[in-house]
Amino acid sequence: MSDDPAGATRRLADSQYLGPPTIWDAEVEQMDEAECLRLISEGGVGRIAYSGQFGLAVLPVCYKLLEGSIVVRTPLGSTTDEDLRTGIRGADYRITFEIDKVDHDAQEGWFVVIQGPAHHVDAHDDLLSAWVPAPRSSDWHTPEHFVRITPAVIVGRRLRQGGRPLPAGE
Amino acid sequence: MSDDPAGATRRLADSQYLGPPTIWDAEVEQMDEAECLRLISEGGVGRIAYSGQFGLAVLPVCYKLLEGSIVVRTPLGSTTDEDLRTGIRGADYRITFEIDKVDHDAQEGWFVVIQGPAHHVDAHDDLLSAWVPAPRSSDWHTPEHFVRITPAVIVGRRLRQGGRPLPAGE
Repeated sequence: MSDDPAGATRRLADSQYLGPPTIWDAEVEQMDEAECLRLISEGGVGRIAYSGQFGLAVLPVCYKLLEGSIVVRTPLGSTTDEDLRTGIRGADYRITFEIDKVDHDAQEGWFVVIQGPAHHVDAHDDLLSAWVPAPRSSDWHTPEHFVRITPAVIVGRRLRQGGRPLPAGE
Repeated sequence: MSDDPAGATRRLADSQYLGPPTIWDAEVEQMDEAECLRLISEGGVGRIAYSGQFGLAVLPVCYKLLEGSIVVRTPLGSTTDEDLRTGIRGADYRITFEIDKVDHDAQEGWFVVIQGPAHHVDAHDDLLSAWVPAPRSSDWHTPEHFVRITPAVIVGRRLRQGGRPLPAGE
């Protein structure tokens, strides 16, 4: 890991997307953190990635942006739940969260990548009141679990169709 | 890593998605490999994840399914390109590739996760004729690079709205 993870990740994104040809051969512009957070503020489906007991896992999850943190739900006692527990009280697990909205045909869209520690959230935490309003419905008694990702690095890029012609057949 | 990565990844997916409540509280069914490959056969936008010099990277990429392999484009000499070279001739780098199509509101969709080694593909490889037809357009002279992921593990799940009521506010 670099001593400057935020800078390093930005350089990663720059080398990926600002040099020709980009992955999409589209114009790419950096987004600042405020723009990234605005785009992902409505919640929806993102993907968590982490190095777990079965290798590198990438799994789509429902998320909400609550008080500047990404909050995702996982089943209590699931493999993800186990994977994200370090076993050390107060210690946490670093994961990557990705959200994108890319129109492949139009070659337009955006993506946001967030790196940060994952903390387990108590189901009664005030943070979750926006997610699961009390009282719950009577059939809602299965244990579940929430994980909060505190962004340490936020990188986002917006893609627009550039003026450069694409190769035939693309 | 397990001695049985395919089985282990299936168990991961099972524990994730087949126990109540699932991440989406939707009905979940396993898809076999043929169904997974059929769903991703049209290509489009997926995400590669790997452990690189700046930590765990998750990046959207354009991909095609060619002869049973996932082929993605990256800029030559990019950080991803560097990251995915082991420096050992014949050796390769294990990465995870994810594709999903999930309608958050309808709680329906599917996702496919593929784990496998990444090989660098020569731009003149016959495999790529479907991607970049020769001759290229005259302005297409920037070096680029293709990475082929040979699936070692293919896991997929289909999500459908279940009969179980969701908590209010979901």
